Amino acid sequence: MSASVAQRVAEAADLVTVALDALLPRADGPEQRLTEAMRYAALGPGKRLRPFFALETARMFDLEERPVLRAACALECIHAYSLVHDDLPALDDDDLRRGRLTVHKAYDEATAVLTGDALQSAAFEIMAHPDTHSDGAVRSELVRKLAVASGARGMAGGQMIDLLGVTDDLGAVARMQRMKTGALIACAFELPLILAHASEAERQPLMAFAQDLGLAYQIVDDLLDVEGDDDLLGKAAGGKDAARGKVNYVTLLGVEQANERVALLAHQARAHLEIWGERGKILRDSVDFVLDRRN
Amino acid sequence: MSASVAQRVAEAADLVTVALDALLPRADGPEQRLTEAMRYAALGPGKRLRPFFALETARMFDLEERPVLRAACALECIHAYSLVHDDLPALDDDDLRRGRLTVHKAYDEATAVLTGDALQSAAFEIMAHPDTHSDGAVRSELVRKLAVASGARGMAGGQMIDLLGVTDDLGAVARMQRMKTGALIACAFELPLILAHASEAERQPLMAFAQDLGLAYQIVDDLLDVEGDDDLLGKAAGGKDAARGKVNYVTLLGVEQANERVALLAHQARAHLEIWGERGKILRDSVDFVLDRRN
Repeated sequence: MSASVAQRVAEAADLVTVALDALLPRADGPEQRLTEAMRYAALGPGKRLRPFFALETARMFDLEERPVLRAACALECIHAYSLVHDDLPALDDDDLRRGRLTVHKAYDEATAVLTGDALQSAAFEIMAHPDTHSDGAVRSELVRKLAVASGARGMAGGQMIDLLGVTDDLGAVARMQRMKTGALIACAFELPLILAHASEAERQPLMAFAQDLGLAYQIVDDLLDVEGDDDLLGKAAGGKDAARGKVNYVTLLGVEQANERVALLAHQARAHLEIWGERGKILRDSVDFVLDRRN
Repeated sequence: MSASVAQRVAEAADLVTVALDALLPRADGPEQRLTEAMRYAALGPGKRLRPFFALETARMFDLEERPVLRAACALECIHAYSLVHDDLPALDDDDLRRGRLTVHKAYDEATAVLTGDALQSAAFEIMAHPDTHSDGAVRSELVRKLAVASGARGMAGGQMIDLLGVTDDLGAVARMQRMKTGALIACAFELPLILAHASEAERQPLMAFAQDLGLAYQIVDDLLDVEGDDDLLGKAAGGKDAARGKVNYVTLLGVEQANERVALLAHQARAHLEIWGERGKILRDSVDFVLDRRN
């Protein structure tokens, strides 16, 4: 089971990395330091889960590969930019990411700020290009959806709430996470649904899947924060949130209940896609793979 | 002459400020600190020259107001984000902007990073929205043009080159400025040209005007850097570039030749629009107003 999921995830990662390599600006010209850092941030190692979700959702609708691949590349640029900025000293202040120096450590802070900025612009440039889809209305809707997911009511807003640390109950933590990480994960499903002109009935189970899986993924992240092995994660772990006085699922629920919650959400996520039968198998099977962060 | 230009500039500023106030997210919810800072950055005082250029260009083509006003708001969000990030300690490290505290001083650095990020997302959200134009292909083209102007080969790339300070001759300084400030100024003309489905013959004089005026505007900026009055500019002046060992038009040309260059470019800019007769009058008349930075 997981063998084929692992293979599909690896295939998606390869596809997106090759496509991004072609889409990102070459590292040349007097602005080379910037374009190099953009490539360092976006082409480095990563599971590319969002592109995997986007490509698998597109497969369920027998969509042509190019449009969804470009949309996945745009989404991945947004994800990459958010990591570069989150790692900055003024934010999470991380020196390592996936076992490599973060952009502001490998380059410098100013370059890291500009690298995130230019990756965000690149995302919308890729998405809006006529090569993404022949229908301009579809391209605009892809742009709009990605912009909303990235902005003040999505990822950036969630990051703000997280930094403020004002969340003190499960409801508030859940809202924050739906914005901070959930919005972009949901986008991985929504972009191909736009490309497929999916009906509400087709849309609903996939969005429910995205929400449950996104939440479970975040709880696993919080569990790793207290249990994590520095070597495996490639960044400093060991209760960083707790040390900062931050509230998260594990500080609120405890390790045992948090693990139970993950199992429940995983079960629910799979159940949403039962209706898709054989077509939904890879995504259903991907739940355990995605939540096992040692992969 | 200049009275009516000043009036048109003021009218454009009012229009855009009111429109932006309606388009930007309300300052509410747990992410309020972010939405407040976005409004602080985008709705504060400013001449709104880019919106003025966009609205006047649209007028030359008798375009409907709403599309160009939304495009101008998107452009202004990008401009506002770039100022927030440029002011950061890791970049220009400015405490004041137009007589007010910069965002990282009024709030904090993390909020300033996220504020710039979310303003960039807001720009593309506004532009891609169906209210901007009924034709999706037009909306996509507006998005793409703005993204290119903002990104690694435009504003962000120019900022990188400027930070590297590797520019040591006039050609290199001109290239850097065309990217750093020229690309967004050019956009103020290009966006309405897209809305107008303008021909190459209509496009060319306006783009030449934008380029000469943008360059002249930058040289004036460099002149103010050495001559500027702190009170008028609302930020620390007094040869900041020179003190940092940075090369600019004035360090390369000297004050006298720089002033001559401005006069020449202003003359050229106006000449490009002679072909537009009475329709080009406001833009021609705006040259002196725009370059007199005491306004």
